[in-house]
Amino acid sequence: MLAPHAFTSRAAKMAHGVIAYSADTVVAVVDPDLAGRCVRDVLPYLRSDAPIVSSLEAALHLAPTSVLVGIAPAGGSLPDDFRAAIRAALLARLEIVSGLHTMLNDDAEFAALAREHDTRIWDLRLPPAAPLFSGAAWDVKAKIVLTVGSDAAVGKMTAALELVRAARERGADAAFVPTGQIGIAIAGWGTAIDRVVADFAPGAAEQLVLEGERRARELLFLEGQGGINNPAFAPVTLALLYGGAPDALVLVHNVARTAIEDYDVPILSYRALIRTYEGLCATVKPAPVVGIALNTRDCDDGEAQAQIARARAETGLPCDDVVRNGPHALYDAIAPALVKTAVLHV
Amino acid sequence: MLAPHAFTSRAAKMAHGVIAYSADTVVAVVDPDLAGRCVRDVLPYLRSDAPIVSSLEAALHLAPTSVLVGIAPAGGSLPDDFRAAIRAALLARLEIVSGLHTMLNDDAEFAALAREHDTRIWDLRLPPAAPLFSGAAWDVKAKIVLTVGSDAAVGKMTAALELVRAARERGADAAFVPTGQIGIAIAGWGTAIDRVVADFAPGAAEQLVLEGERRARELLFLEGQGGINNPAFAPVTLALLYGGAPDALVLVHNVARTAIEDYDVPILSYRALIRTYEGLCATVKPAPVVGIALNTRDCDDGEAQAQIARARAETGLPCDDVVRNGPHALYDAIAPALVKTAVLHV
Repeated sequence: MLAPHAFTSRAAKMAHGVIAYSADTVVAVVDPDLAGRCVRDVLPYLRSDAPIVSSLEAALHLAPTSVLVGIAPAGGSLPDDFRAAIRAALLARLEIVSGLHTMLNDDAEFAALAREHDTRIWDLRLPPAAPLFSGAAWDVKAKIVLTVGSDAAVGKMTAALELVRAARERGADAAFVPTGQIGIAIAGWGTAIDRVVADFAPGAAEQLVLEGERRARELLFLEGQGGINNPAFAPVTLALLYGGAPDALVLVHNVARTAIEDYDVPILSYRALIRTYEGLCATVKPAPVVGIALNTRDCDDGEAQAQIARARAETGLPCDDVVRNGPHALYDAIAPALVKTAVLHV
Repeated sequence: MLAPHAFTSRAAKMAHGVIAYSADTVVAVVDPDLAGRCVRDVLPYLRSDAPIVSSLEAALHLAPTSVLVGIAPAGGSLPDDFRAAIRAALLARLEIVSGLHTMLNDDAEFAALAREHDTRIWDLRLPPAAPLFSGAAWDVKAKIVLTVGSDAAVGKMTAALELVRAARERGADAAFVPTGQIGIAIAGWGTAIDRVVADFAPGAAEQLVLEGERRARELLFLEGQGGINNPAFAPVTLALLYGGAPDALVLVHNVARTAIEDYDVPILSYRALIRTYEGLCATVKPAPVVGIALNTRDCDDGEAQAQIARARAETGLPCDDVVRNGPHALYDAIAPALVKTAVLHV
């Protein structure tokens, strides 16, 4: 997993997400700044003992089969210091997995190396051809729950993954529906909606929930993207809000965030977020916010519980941190709101 | 101008827009169903005496220099009955202008014919590489007025073009900022925002207003797209609402429209539309709706004036049909709301 000079930064959320949730084993992280330590030493919440090494070459004795480009920066192009490591990985016949906007298969040198060394480059963000939104998503029988956020990178994917786990442990036939490169790396399918041509982004979201229903009969947790007042990413948010045809929304917020990432735009209050998301859904297919998943990673335990209590008091909705406290309490609290048809037995 | 079996359909809005507003002369329209008549006979509001002919060959004696693919259907691919005409046009060394999602330059036969016959294919919808939204649009000094609609294809481009004309006639340094293939065909520059990768659509809109400011110092009328509750096109609408950084909005509605085109979704009331658009803008950069441009094309004169009066009464805003009644009255009514800085003298 490549994250040179970046493993503890927010740009490395690809690395963090795959370590936390992928079924694959992460044998090592490449970041010379942290070499000699292990993942748990620097990011305890990831609960991984994978070693951090100084270079790709230093990880080869651990017999990796593929190399993940562990960053997903805004804009998504390839930092120069990744090139040497990718070159070395291709020479070692490893597969490359990338979620960048820049398609590594379009890089003449990388493409030639992959061919010569009989290996593959997986550009997870390359979307399939998508049709226009058709309305077929409105007929999906499974209940669709979309995670919507106060901003990008606050924990929408994590909330969806944790709630799917709780739903399955409670006996529901539930699936995670991936809509971004990290979710795709974790689940092994999906479409990066932010990479789809704007006219077809809702259609691509619709295709995902149609595929989701083939994978789970009762409950789909659709990974949200962006935030409704993020000036760069809100169109992707809206593509999921309409194209994904949710029946219910779970609001996700990182309590440490007060402004939209990279912009001088304030984060909205819980009530304004709920009003905005529900108001937009109501114009096409109504979907209530049924619960709040708070990300309190940067809080101590007392502060975390106070933030959860405050969100509950301000909104009257079930609220929890599904990582800190586990997803079952929140899932159990929102499940009754999801039971609207005889299909779902929880 | 090619519109076989389609010239009077809504899909031919590309043809209609260019006939109404382009500085280029339209020498003929190809539609065998209407051959022998002229444009004014079948669509009086376009006020054009261009003949309608049965085939491209029948128009060659009129010495065209280019051929416009006159349709812009939802989804934007090339109907089969256009292929023969495009082939004939390339053989006659005419340039081809297309606003389809399907890129004609990617068609091996067309590309080869264009090369062999030393002519060009202009795919107007092919967007330039766009950066992420940066916030630079917030610093544009010219006042940015975005036309927002109750749906796609209700008259947002027309309203923007007419209001630019009125602004110029009143002495303002004003420009039309094109955001779709028809506007690009008319104005000769711009980007089809609906064709941009979703993550970069607000950035592409921002680049357009930055370019607009180089073209006019005081007032930019930014062409809106889609509609905020159109399930397929709303992400493009939002990309312009945030990325275009408007200072004011003009709401556009076709009074004959009661449901979103192609979907079983009701058109919102004027007040709900205003609340939704203003509400979203307020979360990033506030912009009030300052006026309403009604499209009353399908009404008789009495009904049109009644609809205009009703919209005024329901909203308390200036309202007019800028085609039926000309744009000056509406422009004069909204101009005071646009004068917020000493830059604008109207």
